[in-house]
Amino acid sequence: MAICFPEDRCHLKYVGLTKEEVPDIEQLKGLLSNKTKMVVIHHVSNVLGSMLPIEEIVTWSKRVGAKVLVDACQSVPHMPVDVQKLGADFLVASSHKMCGPTGVGFMHSTFEMLSTMEPFLGGGEMIADVFNDKSTYAEPPSRFEAGTPAIGEAIGFGAPIDYLSCIGMDQIHEYEKELATYLYESLLSVPNVRIYGPAPSQTDHRAPLCSFNVDNVHATDIAEILDLQHSVAIRSGHHCAQILHRNLGINASARASLHFYNTKEEVDVFIHALKDTIDFLTSQH
Amino acid sequence: MAICFPEDRCHLKYVGLTKEEVPDIEQLKGLLSNKTKMVVIHHVSNVLGSMLPIEEIVTWSKRVGAKVLVDACQSVPHMPVDVQKLGADFLVASSHKMCGPTGVGFMHSTFEMLSTMEPFLGGGEMIADVFNDKSTYAEPPSRFEAGTPAIGEAIGFGAPIDYLSCIGMDQIHEYEKELATYLYESLLSVPNVRIYGPAPSQTDHRAPLCSFNVDNVHATDIAEILDLQHSVAIRSGHHCAQILHRNLGINASARASLHFYNTKEEVDVFIHALKDTIDFLTSQH
Repeated sequence: MAICFPEDRCHLKYVGLTKEEVPDIEQLKGLLSNKTKMVVIHHVSNVLGSMLPIEEIVTWSKRVGAKVLVDACQSVPHMPVDVQKLGADFLVASSHKMCGPTGVGFMHSTFEMLSTMEPFLGGGEMIADVFNDKSTYAEPPSRFEAGTPAIGEAIGFGAPIDYLSCIGMDQIHEYEKELATYLYESLLSVPNVRIYGPAPSQTDHRAPLCSFNVDNVHATDIAEILDLQHSVAIRSGHHCAQILHRNLGINASARASLHFYNTKEEVDVFIHALKDTIDFLTSQH
Repeated sequence: MAICFPEDRCHLKYVGLTKEEVPDIEQLKGLLSNKTKMVVIHHVSNVLGSMLPIEEIVTWSKRVGAKVLVDACQSVPHMPVDVQKLGADFLVASSHKMCGPTGVGFMHSTFEMLSTMEPFLGGGEMIADVFNDKSTYAEPPSRFEAGTPAIGEAIGFGAPIDYLSCIGMDQIHEYEKELATYLYESLLSVPNVRIYGPAPSQTDHRAPLCSFNVDNVHATDIAEILDLQHSVAIRSGHHCAQILHRNLGINASARASLHFYNTKEEVDVFIHALKDTIDFLTSQH
């Protein structure tokens, strides 16, 4: 979620994909100039499963004076993330992807950075002095927390953080790496399946998710039948990444995503159900 | 909570108070002109306990082509509110004042009105088609609900609505009227107390809350001692209404607020504790 900019106030440039289907960071490097205000990147892609080299991108961006915002929604729940080491100006993640409540998330930044910024939402808690013709604002982070805070959600968000930390983010990451490869290879063995993003062998990191399509079958039909006939829940659609899907030459994809509580046996169940689903859908033609 | 407007893009005009300490609606009427874009009013004041004649204000405002936004946070939890009868363009209330979860609320408007408005937050769920250089948006209300919705909160918000409706908003309103008068009169009997807003006898509606000060004692000291020594929770400060407080010639007030689950016996406990607190604080001088 981000504030809408009028299109005439900023000029957006996009990075394409390499042949391995990861964002082309050499192209990104070439796009950077002293006119670049902000570089907005994911840490781990929710479609491709690939991970960007944040530290490298931060170094390049700082060189031209650009700020970096990292969407870490797909990394923070799955691996140790050291915000100081990454060095991005802003890093965001959401609670509901970390086994936490909906309606809450966090943005990491520095007091210095936030102090240079004006609030864009007004309300209780974020003001210092309110006059008829002007207001002064509270220090960060309150300045950006207008209205009664999501109190229950913020407290509730603490529980999964403790829970995940207690299991150990390193532990979770190691286990998920295994799960990710197992999912990828199992899915690759299903005939007529096209998986997007790099193979585990082509990349340092492959998240435990696979976006895919099956020849002549719509992604939504796959998700629907998997759910109705096999009680297997996957997502279908453009996963809030329409431009990326267009880049891949598709309108939609199906996506199986795993977390630390999933098992290889569940991957087997999914693959079996998927084969049945493909049979079911293609035999209707 | 509202989007921050640059001060040079709109000119704010404020309404003062009558001698009964209610917003001066005759003054409001005089301020309206065909240059008025929006009239922003409370339904029930969280400081004064008074209620504004919304229907009348809506009629005047429509006459000059102004939109009306009503903050109904203090009315919706306490009385039947007929949004269609009130006729405001926008009416908002929050869940946490209705025994519901934090982090969620609602805005009532019409599809027609919302269709004329541009979104100001972008994200998942609110888009139709996203292109490199432009986006099209979903129909209202989705257009204004960027990102993963507060799913748990929205479902959780249903529970208090059912609960309050089951008790009956008329029932709650009747009971609270009695409680309001009892609170006001009990508090009036405490020496050196100054209550803000109209007396129950001066107004059609007095909410079950009293904002007050005690001569030579700071509101925050009262709240602190009531809490620490008597386990009575009241609020102190400017209640997100600094301009109103300045208008009343004060920086802060203490505020006792009741809901349908409070009793006259609890008011007695509060009054007794307040007298003790005043003794305690004034004997320190």
